Amino acid sequence: MTDRDIKVVKIGGNVIDNDEALQRFVADFAALPSPKILIHGGGKLATRLCERLEIPTTMVGGRRVTDRDTLDIVTMVYAGLINKRIVAALQAQGCNAIGLSGADGGVLPAKRRNPEPIDFGYVGDILQQEVNIDLLRTLLNGGFTPVFCAITLDCDGGGLLNSNADSVASAVAIAASTIVPTDLLFCFEKRGVLRDVEDEASVIAEITPESYANLRSEGVINKGMLPKIDNAFAAIRAGVRSVIIKHSDELLAESGTIIKTDI
Amino acid sequence: MTDRDIKVVKIGGNVIDNDEALQRFVADFAALPSPKILIHGGGKLATRLCERLEIPTTMVGGRRVTDRDTLDIVTMVYAGLINKRIVAALQAQGCNAIGLSGADGGVLPAKRRNPEPIDFGYVGDILQQEVNIDLLRTLLNGGFTPVFCAITLDCDGGGLLNSNADSVASAVAIAASTIVPTDLLFCFEKRGVLRDVEDEASVIAEITPESYANLRSEGVINKGMLPKIDNAFAAIRAGVRSVIIKHSDELLAESGTIIKTDI
Repeated sequence: MTDRDIKVVKIGGNVIDNDEALQRFVADFAALPSPKILIHGGGKLATRLCERLEIPTTMVGGRRVTDRDTLDIVTMVYAGLINKRIVAALQAQGCNAIGLSGADGGVLPAKRRNPEPIDFGYVGDILQQEVNIDLLRTLLNGGFTPVFCAITLDCDGGGLLNSNADSVASAVAIAASTIVPTDLLFCFEKRGVLRDVEDEASVIAEITPESYANLRSEGVINKGMLPKIDNAFAAIRAGVRSVIIKHSDELLAESGTIIKTDI
Repeated sequence: MTDRDIKVVKIGGNVIDNDEALQRFVADFAALPSPKILIHGGGKLATRLCERLEIPTTMVGGRRVTDRDTLDIVTMVYAGLINKRIVAALQAQGCNAIGLSGADGGVLPAKRRNPEPIDFGYVGDILQQEVNIDLLRTLLNGGFTPVFCAITLDCDGGGLLNSNADSVASAVAIAASTIVPTDLLFCFEKRGVLRDVEDEASVIAEITPESYANLRSEGVINKGMLPKIDNAFAAIRAGVRSVIIKHSDELLAESGTIIKTDI
């Protein structure tokens, strides 16, 4: 694909909802050496648009159900407005960004999640083995920087599905890692995995499988962070070199929590 | 780019607003031999969404003014919903489509139209000399089929602009024609340029500069068609081999009006 290591960077909705934070992030991301790939979450715009259009939001177990109307809204907001705004901002910073959904080039085929026991509607789980690495290879070789939203291709129906942006980031990083060493960076509103959630200075610099076992048994890591770290280890087991969890303002700094194997 | 002739196909809003016509067209376009590029118009979805959100539509001289809110809506609808729906439908038909706006890969840089004498807002005219042919070349060489909406990159501001889909189609075809012979097809709801607008059987098979002069002086061609044919000749003067105006249901047929030079 390229003989240089790849960085796959994910930004969450909190950054997208904050214009100034997004502009700062965009400038930093543009300055990050290529090759690189950006994955962005959705933020609150889709929810606000659903409210304005009086499309009811159905939540099951704290998660939104994606019905047909909601799928149209998230496709408009994620693949349209947010994706193209980020692309235009990156272009203005000299980064040759190209915005994509998982449907484009068939890069992220997904399967609609089993409606039993809970039907989440048009929600898709990515088929990791079928991620189309050809498009990534073509674009990165051409000097482009892919920017993905979390809309994926329903490989059964010819339609679209709503996927989790963290999962898209992991799937893209795992696919890239089959070709060159790949690091996966999750940027959010905290400085890393914190030993004390109230203290931004308490960043845990490194987590290995061994230290993770200790941190869990000590109850140090808060519950919301556990699935993120479990996913990070899953990405590493699947081939990603390291996963870094850090603040979106510190993309270019040596900071955050690095998750890697002991080796 | 590829050593084979390219077809650049444009479909208008009337096809997009009609689900059955769109599905028929998608199946035909998927069956068209590669390399090929699709450009789609907008249809009425954006206008309807503006109405539902109570965003007032301002028209000047029969043309919509694109204010900031309207730009967000057309970006959502054209670059998001319509573009990704068409891509997913093409993927299901085995066509490896990749959806793009003119901002992606900086492929269609545009300049905001002079606000004098009429300020149309965020409306962009494409900078033909700066069309980024590298991305088209990269994608076509990789076996992908680009699918464009008419959102372009504001080369002055880092933002997006709303452009005319016919102009996008011409700009893409002219850029492609610098590398290989390129034909430009405008698909709409009539069978071609008609001698008698009430008679679908009265298609004029061929228009050359000479016959066009005659048709104009005889008053045969109706006024709405004149700018389309003028644009077609402009594309041909800029390097496109031929322009064909035909019905969206007859993409694969030898039909419609072919516009070309005498040579």
